[in-house]
Amino acid sequence: MERVMINELNNFIGKEIQIKGWVYRIRKLKTITFVILRDRTGYVQCVCNNSLNMATIKLESVISIFGEVKDGNNSLNPFELEVESFEIINSAKEDLPIDINKSELDLNLDTMLNNRVLSLRHEKVNSIFKVQNLIVQGFREFLTKDGFTEIFTPKIVSEGAEGGTEIFELKYFENKAYLAQSPQFYKQMLVGSGFERVFEVAHVYRAEEHNTNRHLNEYVSMDLEMGFIQNEEDIMNIEENLIIFIFNKVSKEGRKYLAALNVAIPNLNNKIPRLKFSEALEILKKEYNKTDLDGDMDPEGEKLICKYSKEHFGSEFIFLTHYPRRKRPMYTMPLGETETHSFDLLFRGVEITTGGQRIHDYDMLINNIIYKGLTPELYHNYTKIFKYGMPPHGGLAIGLERITAQLLSLENVREASFFPRDRTRLTP
Amino acid sequence: MERVMINELNNFIGKEIQIKGWVYRIRKLKTITFVILRDRTGYVQCVCNNSLNMATIKLESVISIFGEVKDGNNSLNPFELEVESFEIINSAKEDLPIDINKSELDLNLDTMLNNRVLSLRHEKVNSIFKVQNLIVQGFREFLTKDGFTEIFTPKIVSEGAEGGTEIFELKYFENKAYLAQSPQFYKQMLVGSGFERVFEVAHVYRAEEHNTNRHLNEYVSMDLEMGFIQNEEDIMNIEENLIIFIFNKVSKEGRKYLAALNVAIPNLNNKIPRLKFSEALEILKKEYNKTDLDGDMDPEGEKLICKYSKEHFGSEFIFLTHYPRRKRPMYTMPLGETETHSFDLLFRGVEITTGGQRIHDYDMLINNIIYKGLTPELYHNYTKIFKYGMPPHGGLAIGLERITAQLLSLENVREASFFPRDRTRLTP
Repeated sequence: MERVMINELNNFIGKEIQIKGWVYRIRKLKTITFVILRDRTGYVQCVCNNSLNMATIKLESVISIFGEVKDGNNSLNPFELEVESFEIINSAKEDLPIDINKSELDLNLDTMLNNRVLSLRHEKVNSIFKVQNLIVQGFREFLTKDGFTEIFTPKIVSEGAEGGTEIFELKYFENKAYLAQSPQFYKQMLVGSGFERVFEVAHVYRAEEHNTNRHLNEYVSMDLEMGFIQNEEDIMNIEENLIIFIFNKVSKEGRKYLAALNVAIPNLNNKIPRLKFSEALEILKKEYNKTDLDGDMDPEGEKLICKYSKEHFGSEFIFLTHYPRRKRPMYTMPLGETETHSFDLLFRGVEITTGGQRIHDYDMLINNIIYKGLTPELYHNYTKIFKYGMPPHGGLAIGLERITAQLLSLENVREASFFPRDRTRLTP
Repeated sequence: MERVMINELNNFIGKEIQIKGWVYRIRKLKTITFVILRDRTGYVQCVCNNSLNMATIKLESVISIFGEVKDGNNSLNPFELEVESFEIINSAKEDLPIDINKSELDLNLDTMLNNRVLSLRHEKVNSIFKVQNLIVQGFREFLTKDGFTEIFTPKIVSEGAEGGTEIFELKYFENKAYLAQSPQFYKQMLVGSGFERVFEVAHVYRAEEHNTNRHLNEYVSMDLEMGFIQNEEDIMNIEENLIIFIFNKVSKEGRKYLAALNVAIPNLNNKIPRLKFSEALEILKKEYNKTDLDGDMDPEGEKLICKYSKEHFGSEFIFLTHYPRRKRPMYTMPLGETETHSFDLLFRGVEITTGGQRIHDYDMLINNIIYKGLTPELYHNYTKIFKYGMPPHGGLAIGLERITAQLLSLENVREASFFPRDRTRLTP
C-alpha cells in the first residue's frame, strides 16, 4: 500500500490509507488512545482503541498506521485517522534526552546543538531551515534569470584572499594550503573570463578567535560579482531588487514556516536608505552621544544606526557607503584619497553584506596592493589576469546564516546553521 | 546610453545602440576593418572605417562600440554593427600568452589550466560550464519539486566519514580536524531529523595520492538521501528519473552550448539496465577474457561493462548492483552474508554514482562497524541518533565534474572544473 503524506489527507476522506512517520505525542484515555504522528509535511491525530496497545510505543519511534481518514477538530490538522492497525518500523531504543514534543523547545543553545538531530524535529527549529531554503532558492533564481552563471571555486587555496591572518592552514600533500576566506579572487577572475556575471553559494572559512552570537568559523556565503558596472551603486541596486525578490518568495512560499516561527517579513517597497559611513559616525556622536568610536563602527554602533534608520527613514535596512580606504581590502576601488566605492548593508542591527566596486586597472591594482603594505608578487596568479581585458566590476557577499537569523529574529546565528562550527564546537 | 546585449540585436535593426565586450578578432582590409566583439551572450561583427583606427586595439581589450545595427551575413551572427565610434574601457596590456581566438583551442591541459581565465573565454570551454550549470539546476529543481530540503553540512569534521585514510588534516585552533570526504553521516542525520528527504551540492575532499584523468582532490558532490524507502531499488528509480529530467533540461535549455561542443545528449527513454556486480564480473571473464579481476572491478572493467551494456541493452548507462560487503562502507545495508543493498551507476565507461540503502537499526549498525574492524565509540555522534527513530533510508552521490565530463565526452575530468585541485595543482 502506498504511503499517503499527511498534508494530502484531504484527498482521502472516508478512505483507508497508510501513513508513516514519527510518534510525536501519545495520550491514553479510558478506552481510546490519541497518537499524534508527524511526517515531513505535518502532524495528524490518530485515534486508536486501547486494545491495540499503542500507548506503549516509545515517543519518536518510526511507525506506519493503517486507518480511515475522518474529519477532525484539533488544532494540528482538520482531519484525523481512525486507526485499524499499525506497525513499528523502527522503535526508539531509549527515552529522549531532550523534550522535543512540546510547543516550545525550552533548551539552552548548547543542549540544542548537542542534540541537533532531535531538536531539528521541532517545528520551530526545522522551519528555520525551510525559510533558509527559500532564501537560497530566491538568491539563485533571481540571479539565474538575470544572466548570472553559477560557479564553484576552490576552497583549498595557496594564498589568503585578503592578506589577513584569520585563516585555517592545512597540509596539502607536500605543500601548505589554506581554506578560502571568500571566493573573492575567483569570482573576479570568472567575471573576467567572459561570464561577466557570476554567483556562488558555498562555505567559507574564518579562523576568528572570538566567540560571538553573530560569528561562525564556517559559514555559507552567497556571493555575486558582475562586470560592466558604472560603480558600486549598480551593486546596491541589484541587492535591493534581490532582497525584495527573496522576501517576496519567502512570504509567498514560506507562510507555514513563518507562522510556526511567528515572524512577519519586513515591508520593502521603498528603496533602502543610503548613508555615508562618515555621516553615520557623525549621527552616532550627535544623536546617541557615542564618542568612543574613533573613526570605526562597533556592534553597538551598528545597532544604533539601524535604530536611527528605522526612526528616520522607516527602514529596517540601511546601506552605509563610502567606507574609508584603510578599512577595505586592496582590491577595493578607491574614491579620492581616503574613501572607497564600497558599502555594507545592515539589517536589524547587524551587517549582512559587504560589497563594492573593485579595481579593474592593472597598474592601479598593483599600486593599491603596495599602498596596503602587501607584496604584489604574492598575488601574481590574481593580478596577472588584469593585463588581458578586465571590465569594470563589483560584487557583494551575503552571509546566509546571518540573513536567516536577522530575518527570523534568532538570538544567535548558530541557530541558523544545521551543524555550526565555532571556536570550540567541532561536533556533531 | 544603455548597453544592448549581443543576443538582443534583432530588436534594434536600423537603430543606433551601444554594445560592450571583449575584442575577439580584428581584420583590417584596405578601407574598412572588421572587429568581432564578444559579450556573455555571443559574438557580433562590427564594420568600421579605417579612419577610426580600430585595427590598433589589442585583442581581448574591453571596449564599447556605438553604431547602427544592420542585417549581416556571417556565421557568428545574423546581424552586424556599423561602427560610428568606440571607446576603450580597459585595454589589454600585453599580447595574449595563449591563442584563444581561433575556433579550436589547441592547448595541452596544463597550459589551458595555467591560463584558466583566458581559456575560459573560448566558447568551447565556457560552454562546458554553461552545461554544468544546467545539470546542477536540474538536480536541484527535480528534488525540490519532489519534497527534498537543501542542506549545508560542515566540511570541517572531527572524524572521517568512512574510516579511510585519504583525508586532509587541518589545525582547528587547539584541535585536529579533517576535511569532509562526503556529507554521508550528516545527510543521514538530517533524514532522521525529520526532513526525510535532503540534498546537498557542495565540495568534498579526497587526499588521494594518484593522479588520474578522472580524479580530483576537491570536487563537487551532488548528494541526496531519503527516508521511508523499501530498499535500494527506490534510490535507483529516483536516479533514473532525475537523470532523465536533467538531460531533458540540458537538451532544451543548452542547445547553443551543445552545438558549440558538438555533443548530443544520449536518449534515455528506456530504463537503465541493472546487473549484479557478480554477474558483471562473470561477463567480463566470459565475454572479454578478463581474468585479472580477482573479485574486483578496475577502470578497464568499467569500460568493458559499459561497452557490453551498449551492445546488449542499447544503453550508455548501467547500474551494477549487489556490491560485495567487503567493498562497501560500514553504513551499507547488508544483504545476506556477502552482498549489500548497494549500487554504482556507470556512464560511458566511468562510475558517476555510488549509492544504496543504509542500515537504520542501531544494533545492526554497531555490529556492522565491528564487522568492518572499526571502533563504534569513534562514531558515537553518528550512531547515537539511531536510537531515536531512524526510518529505513538510502541515497546516492553524483560527482558533478564527472557527469559533466562524461556527458560532454571530455578527456579529463579537470576540464569540467573551473579551477581543479589535484595532487600537484593548487593554483590558479
